[in-house]
Amino acid sequence: MSAAGTGTGTGAGGGAGRKPTLAVVGATGAVGTVMLGILSERKDVWGEIRLIASPRSAGKKLTVRGEEVEVVALSEEAFEDVDVAMFDVPDEVSAQWAPIAAAKGAVAVDNSGAFRMDPDVPLVVPEVNPHAARIRPRGIISNPNCTTLSMIVAMGALHAEFGLSELIVSSYQAVSGSGKEGVDTLREQIGKIAGTELGTQPGDVRRVVGDLGPYPAPIAFNVVPFAGSLKEDGWTSEELKVRNESRKILGLPDLRVTATCVRVPVVTTHSLTVHARFENEVTVAQAHEILAAAPGVVLYDNPAAGEFPTPADVVGTDPTWVGRVRRSMDDPHALELFVCGDNLRKGAALNTAQIAEVVAAELTAAV
Amino acid sequence: MSAAGTGTGTGAGGGAGRKPTLAVVGATGAVGTVMLGILSERKDVWGEIRLIASPRSAGKKLTVRGEEVEVVALSEEAFEDVDVAMFDVPDEVSAQWAPIAAAKGAVAVDNSGAFRMDPDVPLVVPEVNPHAARIRPRGIISNPNCTTLSMIVAMGALHAEFGLSELIVSSYQAVSGSGKEGVDTLREQIGKIAGTELGTQPGDVRRVVGDLGPYPAPIAFNVVPFAGSLKEDGWTSEELKVRNESRKILGLPDLRVTATCVRVPVVTTHSLTVHARFENEVTVAQAHEILAAAPGVVLYDNPAAGEFPTPADVVGTDPTWVGRVRRSMDDPHALELFVCGDNLRKGAALNTAQIAEVVAAELTAAV
Repeated sequence: MSAAGTGTGTGAGGGAGRKPTLAVVGATGAVGTVMLGILSERKDVWGEIRLIASPRSAGKKLTVRGEEVEVVALSEEAFEDVDVAMFDVPDEVSAQWAPIAAAKGAVAVDNSGAFRMDPDVPLVVPEVNPHAARIRPRGIISNPNCTTLSMIVAMGALHAEFGLSELIVSSYQAVSGSGKEGVDTLREQIGKIAGTELGTQPGDVRRVVGDLGPYPAPIAFNVVPFAGSLKEDGWTSEELKVRNESRKILGLPDLRVTATCVRVPVVTTHSLTVHARFENEVTVAQAHEILAAAPGVVLYDNPAAGEFPTPADVVGTDPTWVGRVRRSMDDPHALELFVCGDNLRKGAALNTAQIAEVVAAELTAAV
Repeated sequence: MSAAGTGTGTGAGGGAGRKPTLAVVGATGAVGTVMLGILSERKDVWGEIRLIASPRSAGKKLTVRGEEVEVVALSEEAFEDVDVAMFDVPDEVSAQWAPIAAAKGAVAVDNSGAFRMDPDVPLVVPEVNPHAARIRPRGIISNPNCTTLSMIVAMGALHAEFGLSELIVSSYQAVSGSGKEGVDTLREQIGKIAGTELGTQPGDVRRVVGDLGPYPAPIAFNVVPFAGSLKEDGWTSEELKVRNESRKILGLPDLRVTATCVRVPVVTTHSLTVHARFENEVTVAQAHEILAAAPGVVLYDNPAAGEFPTPADVVGTDPTWVGRVRRSMDDPHALELFVCGDNLRKGAALNTAQIAEVVAAELTAAV
């Protein structure tokens, strides 16, 4: 097994028939924990699974595929004989260590924002652009932001048929997108308000919740129209990610994309309203047919029977769920949709695992 | 005082110098309660304020303008000598009783959906189309739906300058828009989940919350992309109201309007993301200037200082709050905005009170 011939100059060696070795960097974090569950459901892909974390977590034992595995400290040596290294760590840790893993011969699959817009790093969603994973001059593949991932599989399927020209997106983002601190903050604030009559007077929620945690306003009994950090012209980093990453994944550098990102008091699963405009005319019936057949998408759209996705029903599942499909009354080229995706699964760990599997298949085929 | 000469054929008589008599129908309901507070803040407009409710509430005493007033039962006689009758009651009650009040000589100001799209009933937002209140062939004026009202004052101000051509709206609607039952349902569901780890497994919230109240899915720790009832082609009544009412209020029967209405676990104050396209090119600086000067609008848009509206801060206030103003990166004719408005105040009681005051001023001037 070798990456030779893939034009990437990366990839680890290995004997014929040997299953590739996977390293999970950040195994003890929120996404890492979900990742171990996902890897346990997909037992046949990997040979050794090596768990890597910060030195303070080294020696800790975690269960994956039903077996206890001891966590090793992040170091250059930890990447010895690794074929694929997943990174579920903060941007600055990925920025430092993914190139080290690649230099040691591993293909790095990175879930941080460190490399997503690097022209020499592909940004991959296996249902949409799996081919892009093969061209990786730096030996690194990036996993998209969770908000983009919550809709892009469905948008890719519709684009393939109708030719996407514009996306106008509003998000309803879950607090687990901010990590454990986000979830803890929501639960603590809810605890202070549950059983009270708060939420009806100016500032009453703000006065009672106290610590705002990672948010610029209360998140309990509230919505917060600001996610990420402030960038040029009033846009947030999260809004620019939706724009730039959608363009890169779809291979449409001039796609019109506008997003307004809003945090809501939901634990896990991002929702988005999407106004999607296409080159071709669309019908709801055609859109239903495409979405029902698209891998990784569940069409759940029968509002007369109360069927449309909501975060509470979608959480813990793998696909992108799509409902409330309507054609704009003013524009036969435009669809309105409501989309839900688990931001910790397809939005993070699952897509990373899928990218790693694309690479594993390539490495195995190259033997 | 007389409505003669207004071309409406309605309006009550009264002696010169006498302040007009107001009837509040539905005084004991959720909006009625907010209304009594608003009327107490605006003491100088009305002479007698008569409180009317269903027979089972008759005899109850409510405080308005610091005085106790006994509620009288809804009947034809209750409208005797009334100049303006506000209706904060269900559609079918308004449909029956607003024409009776008008026949008795009162101008009916109706907050239900019964007459909003009647071509012989004006739909009025005093900051946007006060002149429309004068032409009321049926003696009835309608108050718009709360979701439309949450944005229309700001949109009217921008339209006057730039010429509106399209609105694409996503809502984040509070549960008090569903009345007391909505608020009670959210609080009960939150009470069952606060202090638990629920919200991370498929269906765990749905299993625990039990009664869904007025909603088709759990509302605690969730968002529900369905408000109102199902109409043609997958649209909800709430989404069609935003479209049809915006067109009527702005006097733009061909305005392109698309809405996706989503309920969120917020007690009071609707929020909306708005993509607004104009005939003319726009800049954020111009939009800021217009919004800062617009009556009934508060511009609150300095995200670098953490300043943008959220429901928790806006609840209990009168204006439409606007923040996160950005110009689309792809379209110099389009603005993105985040708008919040208290759905019980400007979204219901306040606008009704303002319409009634427009009529009161007309009746007084006509003496």
